[in-house]
Amino acid sequence: MRLTIYPGPTPIFLLAFLSCSCVGAADGDLRVDGERLNATMARMKTFGGNAEGGSDRIAFSQHNVDALGYLAELMRAAGLTTHTDFAGNLIGRREGSEPELAPLVIGSHVDTVINGGHYDGIVGVMGAIEVAMTLNDAGVMLRHPLEVAVWTNEEAGKTGSRSMGGAVDESELDLTALGDRTIGEGLRFLGGDPARLSENEREPGSIAAYVELHVEQGAILDREGIEIGVVDGIVGIRRWNITVDGFANHAGTTPMDRRQDTLYAAARVISAVRHIITGEPGRQVGTVGRIQAYPGAPNVIPGRTIFSLEIRDLDMEKIERLFQRISRAAETIAGETDTTITIDQYYESPAAVSDTRITAIVAESAAKLGLSAQHMPSGAGHDAQSFKDICPLGMIFVPSRDGVSHAPSEFTSAVQITNGANVLLHTLIEMDRRLD
Amino acid sequence: MRLTIYPGPTPIFLLAFLSCSCVGAADGDLRVDGERLNATMARMKTFGGNAEGGSDRIAFSQHNVDALGYLAELMRAAGLTTHTDFAGNLIGRREGSEPELAPLVIGSHVDTVINGGHYDGIVGVMGAIEVAMTLNDAGVMLRHPLEVAVWTNEEAGKTGSRSMGGAVDESELDLTALGDRTIGEGLRFLGGDPARLSENEREPGSIAAYVELHVEQGAILDREGIEIGVVDGIVGIRRWNITVDGFANHAGTTPMDRRQDTLYAAARVISAVRHIITGEPGRQVGTVGRIQAYPGAPNVIPGRTIFSLEIRDLDMEKIERLFQRISRAAETIAGETDTTITIDQYYESPAAVSDTRITAIVAESAAKLGLSAQHMPSGAGHDAQSFKDICPLGMIFVPSRDGVSHAPSEFTSAVQITNGANVLLHTLIEMDRRLD
Repeated sequence: MRLTIYPGPTPIFLLAFLSCSCVGAADGDLRVDGERLNATMARMKTFGGNAEGGSDRIAFSQHNVDALGYLAELMRAAGLTTHTDFAGNLIGRREGSEPELAPLVIGSHVDTVINGGHYDGIVGVMGAIEVAMTLNDAGVMLRHPLEVAVWTNEEAGKTGSRSMGGAVDESELDLTALGDRTIGEGLRFLGGDPARLSENEREPGSIAAYVELHVEQGAILDREGIEIGVVDGIVGIRRWNITVDGFANHAGTTPMDRRQDTLYAAARVISAVRHIITGEPGRQVGTVGRIQAYPGAPNVIPGRTIFSLEIRDLDMEKIERLFQRISRAAETIAGETDTTITIDQYYESPAAVSDTRITAIVAESAAKLGLSAQHMPSGAGHDAQSFKDICPLGMIFVPSRDGVSHAPSEFTSAVQITNGANVLLHTLIEMDRRLD
Repeated sequence: MRLTIYPGPTPIFLLAFLSCSCVGAADGDLRVDGERLNATMARMKTFGGNAEGGSDRIAFSQHNVDALGYLAELMRAAGLTTHTDFAGNLIGRREGSEPELAPLVIGSHVDTVINGGHYDGIVGVMGAIEVAMTLNDAGVMLRHPLEVAVWTNEEAGKTGSRSMGGAVDESELDLTALGDRTIGEGLRFLGGDPARLSENEREPGSIAAYVELHVEQGAILDREGIEIGVVDGIVGIRRWNITVDGFANHAGTTPMDRRQDTLYAAARVISAVRHIITGEPGRQVGTVGRIQAYPGAPNVIPGRTIFSLEIRDLDMEKIERLFQRISRAAETIAGETDTTITIDQYYESPAAVSDTRITAIVAESAAKLGLSAQHMPSGAGHDAQSFKDICPLGMIFVPSRDGVSHAPSEFTSAVQITNGANVLLHTLIEMDRRLD
């Protein structure tokens, strides 16, 4: 197949030439074609763009299928051979000069939430294809095979990338994603085969590294005017439901000192969450986003209040330590308010820490390109985390204006996107040199 | 009509005799017939009693009408002349020895909530009728006329008693109460006439006093083992909606120091409510019973949180003072959490303070009967408050087991009910002596 990609010189000659060129000074000057990249970004808006300026390209929609058709064409134009795997992932591959090496994988997703934006996921896919085009145009051959991937259904379960780790449970196939189709039906609609999904699984070590370019979906880079985020990992997440039980009683006839007021107890726990989370240095976050007081009438002391707790950090042990402190505080508050507080974890997503060799390469690449960069965790989940037990991983962030995401006003500028793709390009070239 | 009640001696003779007996020592030994009273209480359970042991005698139901028919019979047997007024209130009247005096009014309601109890309201009505029977049996004539009233639709708007103060707005007639009928239809169903409701209005001074016996609907008397509550008044109530506006944001990508977390701000205000309300002596209560955080997802920092605030006290100025403190605390919290807090009052019910002559008489009557008594506010609303601008008012409480009300398990013992009726009897006799 390589013959069709490099129709000029013979493969043998090419290999020798490119192996050579890879360590040459010339690569340092290699740049993606920012104009072409942003043109393909613009073309992507036509697949599911809506009247509000957002994107309705939800997973398993016709827009999703149409976009994948366009992307497969682009990949082939970039000299990649394409195929759709059992999870409907579109994979474009070029071989490397050392056939025994596992592939380097880059990519992201192009499905959006309903009325989502045009950057979340898309920047990573278009950036990866542009990198492949740039390598192809420059006639650069890497040591490793390269795979450019468009992962299926990131927004409603990371089905595509998780299938690489064998993590998609059969029961998930019966769930509906953001549209009407079940995930099983959707995989078939994209050309996958849910019955053979387990064959997608990649053994640990079977991928040399995975790197994903993505918009930050937060406001740190935008606010500080930093061009590149060097992602130290994707935070782990734990979520709990906290239930406070007391006694529902008449708000007029129950003296203050006789109340078992569960909303008051909950309020104190919520304040404690803030104090404990911010009580030690670091990037950890703790959130109470949902609350319900029962029966929920202005003239009845709530007899039961239920609220959520979420803690995120790169360090799962830190999450556990913070949780234990909150748990002890809740116990004290329960005693002081004559209530009972029970805490049940209902969700856990382990942290996926970036490989430090990769973060170093990302930082160096940004520096080499004259771009400002800052280390940071990814507070949001990404396809990259699906690779944590398969291979070394890393991520590159570019700014999101005002941190807005999952909305039509999501925005990253053409220059910022081009910067990100250039960092991805040089990170890839350098990983190819340093990693096995 | 008096002739039919006292068929024996001539009216003139009777008046002289009874005037005399009213100040005689014999009245101090007068007692209601507890057995008879509790038999009529038991009979009332048959009008709307349900399989769960509760009462479905909601206002304007056939059970309501049937119960009123029974009560009118009882009233006539007690020597009262009965009529139904324009609000469907059943009024039983006996004349007094001094025709120029305004009537003393006693009574309560017999409508219940859906699956309510058999004591709330009923104790006051059956107690009042028993008092009239006792006076009749003993041949005691009061100086004042006596009216025993069964007020319409207490549970869904105090329609009957409020009509006495001309407080029922025409628009209320189109509202449905607890059943299917509108209040207007319901008044007609009970024999009233909504078109002439304004004619029910009583001028200030046209009633000598109003006294209501009622179950506490709280646990103070039950818990302390006190037999009689001397009600200092019915608390005023003010209710507000408090809206905290901030910014909804991703719980993973928004650092703690960049959050405008409205639920955290709300939690601090809720804690402040508790501290401020309990920060000065008194019986005031403050309650946050309802809360909603938007969008209400575990992984989104709530951008808006709305919660209710209710403060009750006998002293409206104290309510205002406490509210101002809460308001100032909210302002400080808004500043510290980078949120905006707006507070809107949506309900106010002024306090109805008992006449101190009446509370003194209630306390003396309890003491004379050897019953333990304690001064207390009524935290719940009652028909009595409808009389605050018409005449001196007072209330007598008897214990509610565990403070339970509006539920099938609502309970006050036969002895406690008899105690309450005896206090009502002696309060009435003493008011008749002392008030004009």
